[in-house]
Amino acid sequence: MRISSMTVHPLAVADPPLRSSYGRHAPYALRTLVVLKTTDGIAGYAEAHGGDGPLAAFEALKPLVVGMDPFQLSSLWRMWGRPDQSGDRSQTWMVPGENPRDARTRSYAAIEAACLDIIGKAIRKPVCDVVGGRAREAAPFSAYLFYKHGGGGGLGGDVREDEYGECLTPESMVRQARQMIARYGFKEIKLKGGVLDPEAEIETVRLLRAEFGPSYPLRIDPNCAWSVETSVKVGVALKEELSGGGYLEDPTAGLDGMAAVRQRLLAAGVDTPLASNVAVTGFDDLVPARELDAVQVVLSDPHYWGGIRATQRMGDVCELLGMGVSMHSNNHLGLSMMIMAHACLATPQMEFACDTHYPWQTEQDEIIAGGRVQFVGGAIPVPAKPGLGVEIDFDQVARLEERYHKLPYRKRDDEAEMRKHVDPNWKRLLPRW
Amino acid sequence: MRISSMTVHPLAVADPPLRSSYGRHAPYALRTLVVLKTTDGIAGYAEAHGGDGPLAAFEALKPLVVGMDPFQLSSLWRMWGRPDQSGDRSQTWMVPGENPRDARTRSYAAIEAACLDIIGKAIRKPVCDVVGGRAREAAPFSAYLFYKHGGGGGLGGDVREDEYGECLTPESMVRQARQMIARYGFKEIKLKGGVLDPEAEIETVRLLRAEFGPSYPLRIDPNCAWSVETSVKVGVALKEELSGGGYLEDPTAGLDGMAAVRQRLLAAGVDTPLASNVAVTGFDDLVPARELDAVQVVLSDPHYWGGIRATQRMGDVCELLGMGVSMHSNNHLGLSMMIMAHACLATPQMEFACDTHYPWQTEQDEIIAGGRVQFVGGAIPVPAKPGLGVEIDFDQVARLEERYHKLPYRKRDDEAEMRKHVDPNWKRLLPRW
Repeated sequence: MRISSMTVHPLAVADPPLRSSYGRHAPYALRTLVVLKTTDGIAGYAEAHGGDGPLAAFEALKPLVVGMDPFQLSSLWRMWGRPDQSGDRSQTWMVPGENPRDARTRSYAAIEAACLDIIGKAIRKPVCDVVGGRAREAAPFSAYLFYKHGGGGGLGGDVREDEYGECLTPESMVRQARQMIARYGFKEIKLKGGVLDPEAEIETVRLLRAEFGPSYPLRIDPNCAWSVETSVKVGVALKEELSGGGYLEDPTAGLDGMAAVRQRLLAAGVDTPLASNVAVTGFDDLVPARELDAVQVVLSDPHYWGGIRATQRMGDVCELLGMGVSMHSNNHLGLSMMIMAHACLATPQMEFACDTHYPWQTEQDEIIAGGRVQFVGGAIPVPAKPGLGVEIDFDQVARLEERYHKLPYRKRDDEAEMRKHVDPNWKRLLPRW
Repeated sequence: MRISSMTVHPLAVADPPLRSSYGRHAPYALRTLVVLKTTDGIAGYAEAHGGDGPLAAFEALKPLVVGMDPFQLSSLWRMWGRPDQSGDRSQTWMVPGENPRDARTRSYAAIEAACLDIIGKAIRKPVCDVVGGRAREAAPFSAYLFYKHGGGGGLGGDVREDEYGECLTPESMVRQARQMIARYGFKEIKLKGGVLDPEAEIETVRLLRAEFGPSYPLRIDPNCAWSVETSVKVGVALKEELSGGGYLEDPTAGLDGMAAVRQRLLAAGVDTPLASNVAVTGFDDLVPARELDAVQVVLSDPHYWGGIRATQRMGDVCELLGMGVSMHSNNHLGLSMMIMAHACLATPQMEFACDTHYPWQTEQDEIIAGGRVQFVGGAIPVPAKPGLGVEIDFDQVARLEERYHKLPYRKRDDEAEMRKHVDPNWKRLLPRW
């Protein structure tokens, strides 16, 4: 069995005006669908970061991928050699998917996912069983709450219903959480912070705790918006609320900053774990992060750490280093949902519910045949179908691809959206508070 | 597909009177053959450590294994929980296969190998491709030289031809090396030391270097027989001979001892890597060994590190920690030969030729159908057949099993052999020199 063709589809997916320390989400998020076909007629799919950069990277890969045996993933990886690990170790100033340090792991991850989809379909096993067997029967995700402006995403005649409404206060965030949990059954909560004044975000977390009680672990992630000082202040204020399975994610920039926050929190009697997907973005960051005690929970992401098997390896390394494992998410469709679910299913150490932006997208933009992936009690069960467990609706792909080509932008720019809609002089400031 | 039966065969394998710091090999080495059969009629095989201890461990496992889906290896592993890592971290005083710390990883490794054999046969792929794809086309092994008494192994009317003769001097070791390399084509050399006076072992290494030249990397492994002082002396004396891909393996006992040797060698301008399979025997030893700079090359062993996927994980961890990877061997037959070969084939970081005792066993004791596994230029190529790539000759198994039941011992005891044949008062002394 050989790969006989590789096609790549750029996609534009309607996205509500979510806020973070990066700025404001544009009306469409960019994704890429990778389709591999084999000589025996099996198709394997993967979803990856979007925009012209990833697209060009995939085009450049075709000569390596077409003709390969989908089982020979180790050889494919070695053809790239070791990724470039020089330069700044963090992606503080970059959105995930832009970091040149993980350009190769990002491209490889998509090819691996599509090859594992092919293998699973060929041997009639779900991907989690192809890579060593499921570590759990369902992959738990958390309610990923965002401060947001009114609007459901899309432009012109193509706007989506605004399911959650404007949400720029602590009280409206509780409403958003209630609504999302009622619909999907999530059992853990993550709040994207770094948007309102820290006092208002503390208040938001407190209201969420009051509403859901201590059985719902709570996390907050301001994406480096805070100084060490502010991070410590928030950590101390939320000592109780972030306990019991919660964490404080990337409160401040850089491993040194994170280490300083940790040290001062411990001195203040607060052992809330610090989590990161900004100060730690690849394997080479793990040992330094551990040595500095800068990070206690690492957010994996099969899309940029190098795939599903890389997520398993990362789980093993984190276990050895005494670090916990969670999972980061970008805007994504149902195919990435399944890649993330299989990565979680196959990684025993993934003991925190994973992030997902999936509730922010709609059926209208889904490329999965038969409609959206369904959560059961906030989790994605091992699918009944082999491979990743889903097939693609190519009419939908054509619609999303046509929309991509009509868009004036080819790269995520949350700052530009802020300047357009909120403040013509807006700039990302780190630390802002 | 489910496992429908598990049978376990104890085997006694003729073994020449090889010497090490543990003493002298008995006339028969003990091994175990594990046979799993599935509901669709596929048989999977594994070879493991031998004796009544491993046998009882496998019997105890049957209720977990029979009925399982061979793809659900992660679940099987989790049913055991984390191995007990308490107590002494090294197995200085134990032969491999006896350490209670790796009792669970040893049993799991055999079940994993047999399940991967089944999966490979079911999907018609070699095991190395089942676990992510081959990292190389052939697994290189080294000429594993031993000081030995005369005799080819076996007892009474069942003795083997003594292919290599007595070898208790530097000169006769060169003859042994020439003979073994001529027959198998090995391109790297490992000498089991800790037997003669260190001066004689230094002389042996020098003669080997003179005979084969610097293109044959040389290693020496005295199994902790030396003090720190002696280890440093040997390391300095063999600076040139152990350079270029060589290493000094477990010269002295314990991580602290190894760290002291390393420090003093570096101070003397000798950067020969220290290797270990005694001070480091499991995942939890890796970070401490690195922190102390006690070990620069770790000897994996799929039999006791937890299998083929565990060997891959170990390779990943060692790469991250900046440590090299090699492979340890015990006496074994062709089935373990294939388990070791697939572990090496599937582990990119395995950049040193692996150890193997295989040349010390004979066709007469082989349980592989069709005869012994063949080396090509000192390496085992990816086999053409699926799974581990071999089938079993159950007439041979019956002969080796019958012999096991006739033996008066059920556990390896190299000290007892020394007392019987060499010195009635012999005791293992560490350090001896």
